[in-house]
Amino acid sequence: MSPVKDLSLLFYPKSICLVGASNNPTKWGCNVLHNLLMGGFEGTIYPINHKAGDVLGMKAYPSVLDLPETPDLAMICVPSDTVPQVIEDLITRNAKVAFIISSGFSEAGEPQSRMERDLASRAEQSGLILAGPNGQGLVCTGSKLYCLMAGVYNEEGPISIVSQSGNVGGTLMFNAYHHGFGINKFVSSGNEASVKLHDYIRYFGTDPTTRVILVYVENLKDGQAFLEACREVIPRKPIVLLRGGKTKEGASAAKSHTGAMATSTEIFDAACKQVGVLQVEDLNQMFQVATALAYQPLPTGNRLGIMTLGGGWGVLASDAASQCGLVLPKLSDQILREFSSFLPTFWSRNNPVDLVATRQPGSMTKVLEILARWDDVDALLMLGVGYGTRGLHMTQQSPFRDNPMMKMVADFVLQEDMSCAETIVRLIREVHKPILVCSDAVLGSRNIDNAPILHLERQNILVHPTPGDGAKTLSAMWQYAQFQQR
Amino acid sequence: MSPVKDLSLLFYPKSICLVGASNNPTKWGCNVLHNLLMGGFEGTIYPINHKAGDVLGMKAYPSVLDLPETPDLAMICVPSDTVPQVIEDLITRNAKVAFIISSGFSEAGEPQSRMERDLASRAEQSGLILAGPNGQGLVCTGSKLYCLMAGVYNEEGPISIVSQSGNVGGTLMFNAYHHGFGINKFVSSGNEASVKLHDYIRYFGTDPTTRVILVYVENLKDGQAFLEACREVIPRKPIVLLRGGKTKEGASAAKSHTGAMATSTEIFDAACKQVGVLQVEDLNQMFQVATALAYQPLPTGNRLGIMTLGGGWGVLASDAASQCGLVLPKLSDQILREFSSFLPTFWSRNNPVDLVATRQPGSMTKVLEILARWDDVDALLMLGVGYGTRGLHMTQQSPFRDNPMMKMVADFVLQEDMSCAETIVRLIREVHKPILVCSDAVLGSRNIDNAPILHLERQNILVHPTPGDGAKTLSAMWQYAQFQQR
Repeated sequence: MSPVKDLSLLFYPKSICLVGASNNPTKWGCNVLHNLLMGGFEGTIYPINHKAGDVLGMKAYPSVLDLPETPDLAMICVPSDTVPQVIEDLITRNAKVAFIISSGFSEAGEPQSRMERDLASRAEQSGLILAGPNGQGLVCTGSKLYCLMAGVYNEEGPISIVSQSGNVGGTLMFNAYHHGFGINKFVSSGNEASVKLHDYIRYFGTDPTTRVILVYVENLKDGQAFLEACREVIPRKPIVLLRGGKTKEGASAAKSHTGAMATSTEIFDAACKQVGVLQVEDLNQMFQVATALAYQPLPTGNRLGIMTLGGGWGVLASDAASQCGLVLPKLSDQILREFSSFLPTFWSRNNPVDLVATRQPGSMTKVLEILARWDDVDALLMLGVGYGTRGLHMTQQSPFRDNPMMKMVADFVLQEDMSCAETIVRLIREVHKPILVCSDAVLGSRNIDNAPILHLERQNILVHPTPGDGAKTLSAMWQYAQFQQR
Repeated sequence: MSPVKDLSLLFYPKSICLVGASNNPTKWGCNVLHNLLMGGFEGTIYPINHKAGDVLGMKAYPSVLDLPETPDLAMICVPSDTVPQVIEDLITRNAKVAFIISSGFSEAGEPQSRMERDLASRAEQSGLILAGPNGQGLVCTGSKLYCLMAGVYNEEGPISIVSQSGNVGGTLMFNAYHHGFGINKFVSSGNEASVKLHDYIRYFGTDPTTRVILVYVENLKDGQAFLEACREVIPRKPIVLLRGGKTKEGASAAKSHTGAMATSTEIFDAACKQVGVLQVEDLNQMFQVATALAYQPLPTGNRLGIMTLGGGWGVLASDAASQCGLVLPKLSDQILREFSSFLPTFWSRNNPVDLVATRQPGSMTKVLEILARWDDVDALLMLGVGYGTRGLHMTQQSPFRDNPMMKMVADFVLQEDMSCAETIVRLIREVHKPILVCSDAVLGSRNIDNAPILHLERQNILVHPTPGDGAKTLSAMWQYAQFQQR
């Protein structure tokens, strides 16, 4: 295979010019500069505006030709018909990397499509690495580079994203942010006139700070190179993929979005499966699978132990687990005896282990300890984390809030939930098995601080919103583990 | 059919006794009383504890026989072996309704199963309506009755829930609470020794304050009566159903939970389809479908218009819409002309209408207006509500926050997003078509106040987390609309 394209100046530039920087907040050239400043980029920033003057309080230059130095990275957001001249100027300055945010290229049909092809040829002849056009920009947390149309400032983490939709990538960034998770790199690859999906995948494959790669794809410009890139990278790092445009209607929408041509779903799915790409069904699942792969140990088998604080959750998780190829081993006589020594007589005596609403102090953590250390299971699912705490903020609003008895109840509940969360974090380290957790407290527009859930997510243990979600995530982890074992 | 069982004293009692009331926060008899007090029940409460004394500051009575009056509703949470005597005492006092929270009955096997059957016969002979056992309690917001193991205090709304799992029902209550939605009634039906699923469904069918009925089922004790109840109710009110125990593993978990016997999934699905029950796949979808049916007009056809702030979201929504039987009509020449008069030249010219990141003031609301009034669509999906606002809190934390230019950007973004949210609320009323909205800002453990999203949810317009979710909800609405049209 050809050498991996070196995209290090794209993600780690020391200087950036923004062509089309603007003071007008209805222009993206204003927002991108604003977000770049907000992100705290520590290199030099050169706003470029043909009227010069000041932009967002910084001195602006009329053109690339007027800059005091050649910047490592040129970001371009001017109308598409003015882009070719900017590229010529950059070539004149011997620039190394440019990213075209502007739309109005191949996704708009001819003659814009020809203009895009011409730009790509011109750049490739001149040794200019050209990303985009029609991409929303990029983020590299390690270099504090938040050069994106959307304003989102994740901390550093091991997950890198390449997306053929800026907004889809943005959703993943915001999902991470709203759960308190970091991101490594994000690039909105746009129309991929020159730098293509497989170039980003291969670069992420060699990037020492990336552990998991997420790909949103509508349009494979070079299917063979994509599959080769996956084959090269997957033995070292998992690739989680979501595909848009599977149906006729989706493909029609994709055509006006990225100019995608329909690909047979059957052929695509078979090829992905063969090289070990983990395909997911929606953006939530994508984020869930990504965080589990990034932060949890891989399971060494498909045997699942479920602990639940409610029967119905256990039933729904069992259905989901079974539907996605996991098995629920029967509890051994020894385990049955151990649980029976402290659980109420009417406990489920089954896997899922249903604590049937026992309020005996310490029961949850004891069950977790025993299940996690049980040799017959490779992974755990804990349903109902932060369950009691969920209701506490209401107690705080109550007229009874100063009643010592109410306080005692609240303290007890919080303490039990917290020790459960702490036990999960500790056990993952000690027994090297994944423990996935679920709680309905992570969905909604109105915040309710839930200390045990915040504790887990601060430790990078994602909380899944439904019992079935956790099972599906584990199934994907097991799929990758099997691929790695080969 | 037999007359509908009158459960009005169960949901609207003037007096309640709680058998097993306790000061010990590790006992459910403490939590249930606490939650009942917290909910602000305005009738009389009689704690019953065999040691008498005070419970949570209230005078307790040693037994039902010692009460100054016969309470309308008796809630029971004492160990199962002591329940028969409590029931005898209630019959002696000529009580009308009892709810057994205690577990340790048929779900625990024999001989507890026989005890449950005996209790049911005894109650039915004596005219005592007996709910449970092994149920987590019930809620009726209209009577401020929050008599539940979980502490959740929704406001009043039109959705009523009967669940064979207390925790599954609790999740629906918390989902509603976290989105700021009300609930009408919730009953955790437990083992249904006497009052059964179909009794609750039929009662909700006659209840003037209930508009949508949610059912979680593992175990149909009387399949024929259940189907007849659905057939009776569905022409007036939709029934949304989630079934647990579809797989061998799920059924095994259900057996230890509610003593459920496996039912053939094929037969169950076919019967549900025939009577018009809307089956859903998980708890999130259940809540999404419920709120749309409760608060939005039904679509009169399956033609969907999509407006999106990002191409990828539109592609994913188109895939989901197509997969669940919705169609995306092509934009007419007139609509194309209207949009082209104000959108950037490179807009998608397609349905989904992709605003391709235009920042022209008022574009979003204009597109919404035109699409909603277009005769060729029966429903709308708006992807990316609150999209700009999502990033604003970060601006507020920024060192640039006092920069007038930054303030201008923030004000502009918020104003556009808010007017979009307000337009959605107004258009639903004016054009009588459902408008479903999606945004990733409703998922996560860390709250970020998003004013447009809060505005929509305060107006009972639920925000769906992924583009596909909105399409699936619309498909369920269309399914019900077709059933009603017959």
